[in-house]
Amino acid sequence: MSVIKEAANLNTRMREVVPLVHNITNYVTVNDCANALLAIGASPIMADDIREASDITAISSALVINIGTLNQRTVESMLRSGKTANELGIPVVFDPVGAGASAFRNEATRQILEEVKISILRGNLSEVSFVAGLNAAAKGVDVSEADSANDPVDAAKMAAKKLSCVVGVTGAVDIVTDGERVAKISNGHPMMSKITGTGCMTSAITAGYAGMKEDMWVAATAGILSMGLAGEIAWEKAGHLGTGSLRTGIIDGLSSLNETKIEEMAKIEEM
Amino acid sequence: MSVIKEAANLNTRMREVVPLVHNITNYVTVNDCANALLAIGASPIMADDIREASDITAISSALVINIGTLNQRTVESMLRSGKTANELGIPVVFDPVGAGASAFRNEATRQILEEVKISILRGNLSEVSFVAGLNAAAKGVDVSEADSANDPVDAAKMAAKKLSCVVGVTGAVDIVTDGERVAKISNGHPMMSKITGTGCMTSAITAGYAGMKEDMWVAATAGILSMGLAGEIAWEKAGHLGTGSLRTGIIDGLSSLNETKIEEMAKIEEM
Amino acid sequence: MSVIKEAANLNTRMREVVPLVHNITNYVTVNDCANALLAIGASPIMADDIREASDITAISSALVINIGTLNQRTVESMLRSGKTANELGIPVVFDPVGAGASAFRNEATRQILEEVKISILRGNLSEVSFVAGLNAAAKGVDVSEADSANDPVDAAKMAAKKLSCVVGVTGAVDIVTDGERVAKISNGHPMMSKITGTGCMTSAITAGYAGMKEDMWVAATAGILSMGLAGEIAWEKAGHLGTGSLRTGIIDGLSSLNETKIEEMAKIEEM
Repeated sequence: MSVIKEAANLNTRMREVVPLVHNITNYVTVNDCANALLAIGASPIMADDIREASDITAISSALVINIGTLNQRTVESMLRSGKTANELGIPVVFDPVGAGASAFRNEATRQILEEVKISILRGNLSEVSFVAGLNAAAKGVDVSEADSANDPVDAAKMAAKKLSCVVGVTGAVDIVTDGERVAKISNGHPMMSKITGTGCMTSAITAGYAGMKEDMWVAATAGILSMGLAGEIAWEKAGHLGTGSLRTGIIDGLSSLNETKIEEMAKIEEM
Repeated sequence: MSVIKEAANLNTRMREVVPLVHNITNYVTVNDCANALLAIGASPIMADDIREASDITAISSALVINIGTLNQRTVESMLRSGKTANELGIPVVFDPVGAGASAFRNEATRQILEEVKISILRGNLSEVSFVAGLNAAAKGVDVSEADSANDPVDAAKMAAKKLSCVVGVTGAVDIVTDGERVAKISNGHPMMSKITGTGCMTSAITAGYAGMKEDMWVAATAGILSMGLAGEIAWEKAGHLGTGSLRTGIIDGLSSLNETKIEEMAKIEEM
Repeated sequence: MSVIKEAANLNTRMREVVPLVHNITNYVTVNDCANALLAIGASPIMADDIREASDITAISSALVINIGTLNQRTVESMLRSGKTANELGIPVVFDPVGAGASAFRNEATRQILEEVKISILRGNLSEVSFVAGLNAAAKGVDVSEADSANDPVDAAKMAAKKLSCVVGVTGAVDIVTDGERVAKISNGHPMMSKITGTGCMTSAITAGYAGMKEDMWVAATAGILSMGLAGEIAWEKAGHLGTGSLRTGIIDGLSSLNETKIEEMAKIEEM
């Protein structure tokens, strides 16, 4: 079965199961992440105090660790929840927002990778390259010009092998790989980069799919593909109105996705 | 006068007074709570540092305590603000988001109930049942299947008597009771559960009405009714577009509510 | 060249440069600030931990300090980032949200002014008056009735001279002054006050313009003007729908602004 069919089918089944996803994430895009999860057919819970981090992870089907606005308090909770997830076989999606931009962010990233087994790493080329210890010149949370020097397929594969996890590199073309299988996704729209949180939402809904606890490469492909399709739907309906409407349209797009639409619209090359 | 007429009239008067509502709430839905309060005719202020919690409560007409993303720091502020509110006769609306989901959340809930006199408790059946010490099996922040075993009217009445406050249980049908009077509200739309924050917004606008410092049962009925009506208006105009548009439509709906619309659309059975 | 032409031209050039703006801001309106910055042609980064505050400021073109939901932890980061900005010649925009509403907020404001050299102060008349030590009677984050006693032009000029910075006082008519030059902006729409975050977004996009490191009076005028124009565009297209749609429309409006529109729509009296 093609990964498109598998991803499409996973969407249908996720909407029946409604997996609970624990998000320790940033306060900038957290509302969009919650609404994106609900729209795609999962259920969000946000909790970042060390006194409950482990308890909340334990009742969830997947965990997202997103370091967008990390602080010492929440880093501790990320580590605690990550360990609980590992113990209980709960998938962990790691979004290293802005990795490379500060020593604190880098040290937190290093610590998370050292203490937590990640199932899926999702970032832009700059972030993924940094995380994998490859050449990276990060400027804030956007893909820097310097990244074009790296080939995203090579970078993603190297990261996947080094970290023994599935890696999703999002950009003009998205790459999802477990080190062997590669999905090259050509969906999405450039205007999505003019809205904050498309990356964070992608990681969140990827965790929804991962919460089905099946093939993590399919889950990551389904998550990244879903966001690309939602962006296309949003652009078609609302892009001419501006970025505020596009943002609303992306949540609308996620909520309207189903097996048929995914199969019809997906542009994935398997390598 | 029927509770519908009273609620409708309270809306008109609130829009004239514009009561200031202090919210110590979660960072997931806080923006929606602020915009919901403005839309319904109140004014929001968010402040959660212990150094100013009491000062901010003292200049406000009502206080919302919402434990959606509580941490030790904010719990202290909730307790401090709650006590100040009690001393000054300022109504307190308590939203025990996810009560039952973790030991920390349960302990914070217990402490708040012990140290703060609540005016209105607003939650789903699972949360209210837990708070009242009744049978509850919480799964995150959603109503669990197990809750259908409890009759919401009985559960709400018991909670109201036990805690000596008005209780609002929201769900397919909403129940508002002070232990004696019961309003059964049949407004709203099922798709509202696919947006994060409808519960939090309900608590916030309920605090707006409570800030008029009149009958707390009427205030809670007005708040919960207003959200149901906004959901219906939103569904009618934007429901077919998706959940992003529905969310925007709910704020639009709240801002368009007035005495006439409330009287025309309200479906309340008084028991 | 008129300030309108200068502001319009600055918008074009900012969209080419895409300056990175570091925001230490509140969790209520942070998402709107990020999307507003992207819409106007800048790039947002949010980071408030003391371990990275200075690093993030150092890679940015401007810094926003917004005390909307300050706490002791973030105040320290504000001071640290402010000092780094001063050392590196990075403009600092200060938004004293709710100054005057609590002793903690006042003390933080005093400390920020003492330790950080501000480039642009942006607030309502109540906040600016308080900050400048003039007569002020703040009620939460809204302009109080009492403020009408002060003439905003006089208050802004006095504040600008006292603090040696550009001052932007937003209200029905907006005033921007460096103590000598005064721009009186008559754009915007009253319904904007029914949405949370219009002030915060104004400060954020002002920092985008300030990040071009040219004339701070022009930058502040461009920022405040841009928000007024976006409000007018939004009111025209979405105002009849309600405040939820108006909020979305403001981001749409910001993203649609360009040199021609700014020149055509701006109503500025230079004094």
